[in-house]
Amino acid sequence: MREQLLAAEQIIALDWQPGVLRLLDQRVLPHIQRWLECRDAGAVAAAIRDMVVRGAPAIGIAAAYGVALAARQHLQSGALCPSAFAADLALLAASRPTAVNLFWALARMQACVAQPGEAAEQLQRIEQEAIAIHREDREANLRMAELGAALIRRHHPHPQALLTHCNAGALATGGFGTALGVIRAAALDGLVARVHADETRPWLQGARLTAWELACEGIPVALNADAAAAYLMQQGDIRWVIVGADRITACGDVANKIGTYQLAVCAAYHGVRVMVVAPTSTIDMSIERGEDIPIEQRSGEELLRLAGQPVAAEVEAINPVFDVTPARLIDALVTERGVIERPDRQQLQQLMASGATR
Amino acid sequence: MREQLLAAEQIIALDWQPGVLRLLDQRVLPHIQRWLECRDAGAVAAAIRDMVVRGAPAIGIAAAYGVALAARQHLQSGALCPSAFAADLALLAASRPTAVNLFWALARMQACVAQPGEAAEQLQRIEQEAIAIHREDREANLRMAELGAALIRRHHPHPQALLTHCNAGALATGGFGTALGVIRAAALDGLVARVHADETRPWLQGARLTAWELACEGIPVALNADAAAAYLMQQGDIRWVIVGADRITACGDVANKIGTYQLAVCAAYHGVRVMVVAPTSTIDMSIERGEDIPIEQRSGEELLRLAGQPVAAEVEAINPVFDVTPARLIDALVTERGVIERPDRQQLQQLMASGATR
Repeated sequence: MREQLLAAEQIIALDWQPGVLRLLDQRVLPHIQRWLECRDAGAVAAAIRDMVVRGAPAIGIAAAYGVALAARQHLQSGALCPSAFAADLALLAASRPTAVNLFWALARMQACVAQPGEAAEQLQRIEQEAIAIHREDREANLRMAELGAALIRRHHPHPQALLTHCNAGALATGGFGTALGVIRAAALDGLVARVHADETRPWLQGARLTAWELACEGIPVALNADAAAAYLMQQGDIRWVIVGADRITACGDVANKIGTYQLAVCAAYHGVRVMVVAPTSTIDMSIERGEDIPIEQRSGEELLRLAGQPVAAEVEAINPVFDVTPARLIDALVTERGVIERPDRQQLQQLMASGATR
Repeated sequence: MREQLLAAEQIIALDWQPGVLRLLDQRVLPHIQRWLECRDAGAVAAAIRDMVVRGAPAIGIAAAYGVALAARQHLQSGALCPSAFAADLALLAASRPTAVNLFWALARMQACVAQPGEAAEQLQRIEQEAIAIHREDREANLRMAELGAALIRRHHPHPQALLTHCNAGALATGGFGTALGVIRAAALDGLVARVHADETRPWLQGARLTAWELACEGIPVALNADAAAAYLMQQGDIRWVIVGADRITACGDVANKIGTYQLAVCAAYHGVRVMVVAPTSTIDMSIERGEDIPIEQRSGEELLRLAGQPVAAEVEAINPVFDVTPARLIDALVTERGVIERPDRQQLQQLMASGATR
């Protein structure tokens, strides 16, 4: 399966060369394929904030490269100045609040930066650490793809309909995707009759990104309005809702794109299973309950305007961009360290104690 | 309350003069206020099909006026030619499939047309019948507004948050609205802290029409993505989901705008009450179960493009524009003849047998 996934890979959204991080601009996909070049931490922070790059794992990887860019800048002009470097880290940390992968990657990079050494040696180590974060994310996705597809096969070893929300694909990660990695592997394994993609307002990540990713690889995909998901479940042929995650708490509550919670409630009502696919870098054992995850509220303008054109009356708009699905609504959590069914505190603790994957 | 509602009335979407039906073009509201003139049944049928006029009661009223326009055209050139007249009726009947008010209004107009008489007398009678359908719809809405607001007060006599979907307002009816009629009366009665309006993809009736109607009258309204509704319910201050209907079966199943079913499932999960507000002209006792209601599937283009601009990858799009909420998920059905709590076959039969309201 690993070799098949690697052979089928078409979409790359992050490209690193020492001194420059190139990002495929996800705001204008699929109609325009434009790359943005970031040469310092500020540019990476802006790209994260403005959603040039999005998706929890991809944000973490971009932030790691942002630290590498900062290190190169500072080390080229002599030694690392702690206060200037801290300012760069703070910029990156402030770019978006909900996805924990960002803070996880920054902490890991900081630990690497803290190690002493000659400037050149230090820079090489820091850049290698960012590359390792990227590479490990790809490996985690390949592993989760296998585990998730096996889980689907175990429940129903025939072609079936799946539903996904937002984009947890190659574009949202270091490659292959979390939820879409599983869907890719399931498709290669003959288990996918059709993927229903929620369009995912207001940014339309499902319509623009997921539909594009799947169509590129010839996986049958049909787009629907977010509000049509329960109707589709009612028709009876959807077996799994498969989504990614932006942060998972110690007891298994899952923050993910707004609308995930609504899907999970409707899935429970219809006996449709819910699979959350996320690397352990998305798990935040420091937070117990979902209510404590900071939920990003973005500007109401995202609902009131589309491509600059007004699409609504001039009223207040409430625009939470994530929600929290309680663990009790999740059937399976797929990580690179294994699958947890009906996630709870004890199983998550065991999983996280089960050893590093590096 | 009746007088207060009449005094507050600002929005009129249908204007009848003998020989011409003027329709406020709901495809371009609220940014452009453009009236379209229809002078024959074909123009009215096209206006219904193309959603210049939408909303089950407004479609019924427009169709009734369409019959009056056909009658005028035919009677002015002599007697009513049955085959030509039947062709006009068929055009109107084929304009949209789900809202039963269309067929109800056409049947009532046909019965009126079937009565013998001199041409001038016949024309006057036919035009008066269309005007009566329009006037009775306004009266029904005024009555439902009072009944629905009283129901809200009975459960919680303080300002509270309500959530509505699509537009069941003045624009969707002969005036005041069904769901928005209740919300207007509740606001006049001091019961509304805030109305959450689902934007309602793909036509954005909530963002464009409901938000505009409520803002025009100073009723506090906040827009949200359709996928955020369950998140808002989870926050805990929404007490009612209030919607209109396009067709209600003999056992109380309700066809309404796609997304209504999803809301009702989520409302049940959160202990939020669901109120459906619809005149008896929306009740179709000839259909037993919701599964038998024809659900209109519109072009996938409505999801793939917005104002002519592509907003999605070029994939298949599934675009059911209505769904069916089973009676068991509905707490109250408000009609002009009274309120039914937990609707079922027996109560609906009693309601429909309780005498005409004409």
